[in-house]
Amino acid sequence: MDLRACLFDVFGTVVDWRTSVSREFAAFAKEKGINGIDPVEFAVEWRKLYHPSMAEVSSGRRPFTILDVLHRESLMKLLGRYGIAGLSEADIEHLTRAWHRLDPWPDAVEGLTRLKRKFIIAPCSNGNIALMVNMAKRAGLPWDCILGAEVARAYKPLAQAYLGSCRALALAPANVLMVAAHNADLKAAKSNGLATAFVARPREHGPGQTSDLEPDKTCVDIVAKDFVELVAKLGA
Amino acid sequence: MDLRACLFDVFGTVVDWRTSVSREFAAFAKEKGINGIDPVEFAVEWRKLYHPSMAEVSSGRRPFTILDVLHRESLMKLLGRYGIAGLSEADIEHLTRAWHRLDPWPDAVEGLTRLKRKFIIAPCSNGNIALMVNMAKRAGLPWDCILGAEVARAYKPLAQAYLGSCRALALAPANVLMVAAHNADLKAAKSNGLATAFVARPREHGPGQTSDLEPDKTCVDIVAKDFVELVAKLGA
Repeated sequence: MDLRACLFDVFGTVVDWRTSVSREFAAFAKEKGINGIDPVEFAVEWRKLYHPSMAEVSSGRRPFTILDVLHRESLMKLLGRYGIAGLSEADIEHLTRAWHRLDPWPDAVEGLTRLKRKFIIAPCSNGNIALMVNMAKRAGLPWDCILGAEVARAYKPLAQAYLGSCRALALAPANVLMVAAHNADLKAAKSNGLATAFVARPREHGPGQTSDLEPDKTCVDIVAKDFVELVAKLGA
Repeated sequence: MDLRACLFDVFGTVVDWRTSVSREFAAFAKEKGINGIDPVEFAVEWRKLYHPSMAEVSSGRRPFTILDVLHRESLMKLLGRYGIAGLSEADIEHLTRAWHRLDPWPDAVEGLTRLKRKFIIAPCSNGNIALMVNMAKRAGLPWDCILGAEVARAYKPLAQAYLGSCRALALAPANVLMVAAHNADLKAAKSNGLATAFVARPREHGPGQTSDLEPDKTCVDIVAKDFVELVAKLGA
């Protein structure tokens, strides 16, 4: 393999969205006197609306729309479902941007910082540019640039999300490694010619997680237990 | 001013294209045994084709085309004009990518590194993403992300180049500072609502430079002699 760049899935692979969004909702609920809602459940329910919201775009039923907008629309549905009313525009914007304030897994910053010495590193996430930049500034993620859905104008797992990100770097897919904790993401990357690395995140969905505990060997080139082991396996 | 991000013109403002491209051409010519061409003249002639090549896109006569492609087309014209023949595809690609290997002005890395602690910093350049990323990796430019023409799908000084870059950060233009050594760039930024900073680069065009030696006070908010002074003026 002649790798020049490492692209990363972000939600779940680089950052722990479940713990972070539930922390954000818990703090918000406490401040507003909203009681009786399990913040982890709220985070999980919000995330459940993620794929359906992108499906509207990926199917062509809706023009490309950035994830901040989709996150906000999903939030509005949830607020209705949970009977949360009377929030201000600033409140809704603050909550929507909970997704900009996600904490990295403990190995992420060290691993990325070391990978950056040898490779171009960038997110290939469905998150939009502002989301990825604000998250990186807060969490110390040392990206070289922000790629992914907004640059490619397509959501993963559509081919254009991967190929558009490679094209932005003027690199052939074979010179690009896609790193993710999700086999479906790596399967799509591999089918578009990228190299693939699986890093398990067995607590992404909490203690009872059953999915993506093991790599799908039909589409995974490299397996590492965390980003620091990935550095070693890539000789970086 | 409530500034959140600093966007930078790059060619001439952050990097010294004239010295760098002429150095690259001189090394290439020596290796290939190409004699009798002044490398500084070659660099200047190449740059003269820059604005006309973008004008084809900005006028709508041609769909958006990244600068690497325009640089290559301009190079082909120059090679014909100078009677340089027999270059391989790899040679042409190497020369085109001279624009990826530009050296920063001496104050640029220190200034950007310090500005990054307080602001989002990104290029708002007509250079494409791969060009900006490769330049940054080589020169140590610590961008948070790459914005500008390829992300906005428009070349400066069109409004969309500035507004699309602000929109990618989800920031109002008034919260964004455009930094450039060129008054025309700052005039366009200001007319689109951005704050502006002028940093003179009196040797961009060599010892006889007559343009952009002074700020145009009708469109410039901040004047600094270099990026380090800009840091001080922004309290960063």
